[in-house]
Amino acid sequence: MIKVLRLGHRRGRDDRISTHVGLTARQWGADEIVYSGEKDDKILESQRDIIDRWGGNIEIRYTEDWKSEIKDFEGLKVHLTMYGEKIDEKIAELKERFEEEDLLVIVGAEKVPRWVYTHVDYNISVGNQPHSEIAALAVFLDRIQDSGIREEFDGAEIEVRPSEDRKLTEEI
Amino acid sequence: MIKVLRLGHRRGRDDRISTHVGLTARQWGADEIVYSGEKDDKILESQRDIIDRWGGNIEIRYTEDWKSEIKDFEGLKVHLTMYGEKIDEKIAELKERFEEEDLLVIVGAEKVPRWVYTHVDYNISVGNQPHSEIAALAVFLDRIQDSGIREEFDGAEIEVRPSEDRKLTEEI
Repeated sequence: MIKVLRLGHRRGRDDRISTHVGLTARQWGADEIVYSGEKDDKILESQRDIIDRWGGNIEIRYTEDWKSEIKDFEGLKVHLTMYGEKIDEKIAELKERFEEEDLLVIVGAEKVPRWVYTHVDYNISVGNQPHSEIAALAVFLDRIQDSGIREEFDGAEIEVRPSEDRKLTEEI
Repeated sequence: MIKVLRLGHRRGRDDRISTHVGLTARQWGADEIVYSGEKDDKILESQRDIIDRWGGNIEIRYTEDWKSEIKDFEGLKVHLTMYGEKIDEKIAELKERFEEEDLLVIVGAEKVPRWVYTHVDYNISVGNQPHSEIAALAVFLDRIQDSGIREEFDGAEIEVRPSEDRKLTEEI
């Protein structure tokens, strides 16, 4: 089971980034996506619209109390940050734990409180350069699962037919 | 050599997504990042500011004439799209070609013209679900290079010291 927690969402400024975080989590198999920061029904609704059409049993919700999401989670807690230990050095250990345990992945917006760093099992960097929490999340979920790209989503109304040179979809 | 072409940038709406595309390309070793769509000096400047401080020999520029960027590129041309052939089925072939050839990776905004699909060597999907061009770019560059995360950037004024539980940076 994979849960993704997005910290520090800011309405307006982060709308599209936070939406991409959620859709990326879904593509790589997350079961639950939790947003914190400013409450924003619009980003929850836009993702629910995509799930209605493209399928999947994914819980998407908002919480004000992000500390409890971390403290009460039973399993492996990983915060992705450019300041963390290198993914290359830790991935074997993390994969082993993920075989036995549920996984919580935390991605922040610009300022993540120190509290997060000291209340997770690992602070992991997917590169030590400033880049993108979306990229970090995707590559982390891709590596910890040996390609976690999901093919099947329950209840989908539409599916892509992969093509060499055009856009093909099928209504189901 | 890796070049990344971002198509269809829209000022305002795409600012942060396009910036994340550029920073992700840099983290995974791109040498050149070209933006097309609406001209937007702000996103070029904000990335140049990051490069000034964090280093790297990366050319970042805008072009109106995105067709020439594709037509005139000598090497392997890959368009990332949720409608393309599955990365799992093509990656071995792509890696082989990338050992011999320069690589152009194209990522679009919402509507990519059919012309792009028919003027590249491959249309590749990193998942066939709607998600994020940032995630697709990161995972594609990560896989085609067997971890392309770059560690060293020429001329950096600052570097992260990877840490278990805190933010450590060093001025160089």
